[in-house]
Amino acid sequence: MVRYKAIISYDGTLFSGFQRQPDARSIQEEIEKTLLRLNSGTPVVIHGAGRTDAGVHAYGQVIHFDLPQERDPEKLRFGLDTQCPDDIDIVSIELVSEDFHARYNKHSKTYEFLVDAGRPKNPMMRNYATHYPYPLSLVPMQEAAKDLVGTHDFTGFTASGTSVENKVRTITQARVSIDEKTGFYVFTFSGNGFLYKQVRNMVGTLLKIGNGRMPISQVKTVLESCDRKLAGPTASGNGLYLKEIKYE
Amino acid sequence: MVRYKAIISYDGTLFSGFQRQPDARSIQEEIEKTLLRLNSGTPVVIHGAGRTDAGVHAYGQVIHFDLPQERDPEKLRFGLDTQCPDDIDIVSIELVSEDFHARYNKHSKTYEFLVDAGRPKNPMMRNYATHYPYPLSLVPMQEAAKDLVGTHDFTGFTASGTSVENKVRTITQARVSIDEKTGFYVFTFSGNGFLYKQVRNMVGTLLKIGNGRMPISQVKTVLESCDRKLAGPTASGNGLYLKEIKYE
Repeated sequence: MVRYKAIISYDGTLFSGFQRQPDARSIQEEIEKTLLRLNSGTPVVIHGAGRTDAGVHAYGQVIHFDLPQERDPEKLRFGLDTQCPDDIDIVSIELVSEDFHARYNKHSKTYEFLVDAGRPKNPMMRNYATHYPYPLSLVPMQEAAKDLVGTHDFTGFTASGTSVENKVRTITQARVSIDEKTGFYVFTFSGNGFLYKQVRNMVGTLLKIGNGRMPISQVKTVLESCDRKLAGPTASGNGLYLKEIKYE
Repeated sequence: MVRYKAIISYDGTLFSGFQRQPDARSIQEEIEKTLLRLNSGTPVVIHGAGRTDAGVHAYGQVIHFDLPQERDPEKLRFGLDTQCPDDIDIVSIELVSEDFHARYNKHSKTYEFLVDAGRPKNPMMRNYATHYPYPLSLVPMQEAAKDLVGTHDFTGFTASGTSVENKVRTITQARVSIDEKTGFYVFTFSGNGFLYKQVRNMVGTLLKIGNGRMPISQVKTVLESCDRKLAGPTASGNGLYLKEIKYE
């Protein structure tokens, strides 16, 4: 068996998420269907570094899978890319050692979240940014984002009822800026792992702060209380991008 | 009757074009359906500055229409924008004199055409840029584009069999550049009027030149010969944007 690591990008709009599930279109299923054909009909299972939800996009999702023989990585990339549906792209493929695991090898992830605050919105971006047609102040969001950086218990920012026990994670970067060209607000988060819906809940809270309906100190309040009810609403998945994954 | 001028933007992906046609979804039909509701059930006809084809997008299409009474333009914009489908936006509305006509008043149009030359493409942009996965050189395209500027007979760059008799048009700007952030090639054309499929045929020809399969002088050859067969193929509509219309 030869193990391959691939960086993939996809438009999440028409998927119910990364992970295979019955009666719903998933990124995993589409790639495994294509690998099955490229592997002479023998099933291939792929493992992703993380699961993305319905509507969430990726520029730098990482997967690994095994094939019985060594193949030229660029030829394999081209074949897989060409035969996958149009909303999935295979950015690169490399051979890795047998013990590489996309999910369990230590890595940091960077997520980006785009908010279109235009009135009206940009119709071309309606599936690729979350529309927020209310007043927003940049500086309060930038201030509040600083409080997310560090090692914290993020229970207050994850969906209630999550089965993961340890909710302590480290965020190394939490930035809010405005893209000069598009005028969109760009939220960037890097860290060693994120809980279910954590990024979208952090963005939802920062938007409430930027809109003046929560104080800048609300981020600290949520972290200290571990109370999901004190955080803002979950921002919509269509603005979220899994941007990059870096392995140690 | 009071006449209104509106700037509209739309994502052309799910439309068969601007113009109303039987059994196909058009921008005109969707806006007229919404205006009918806002006008107490009395039909309203809209007139666009130009027709865009299936898949072609707009940031600055201009329309005009009449309503029996004067309304606050921003309230009308908001109502129309909110009730139109998600892939159409009403950017602005203003009251204009009764003799304003979006199509017949003298104006210049600016079109932009985006080409994603990445390998692989950006999946998020698959409906918003034309993918061209072959080598491209910027400078030959820039040189050739200069020959398009001026007043010429553009017969060689329009679809054969077009009913318009006078095919002389003036192009005031023809530029090719690379967007630093996306790496996309951006083709920009301004002029006092464009023939059917003219922009897409000009782009198709410039791409052949950039790919080294036609000489830089080909633009001149097509203009002088008025022979459509000497031009490149029609570039796909999904990369084309009606960017801006300026009235005199």
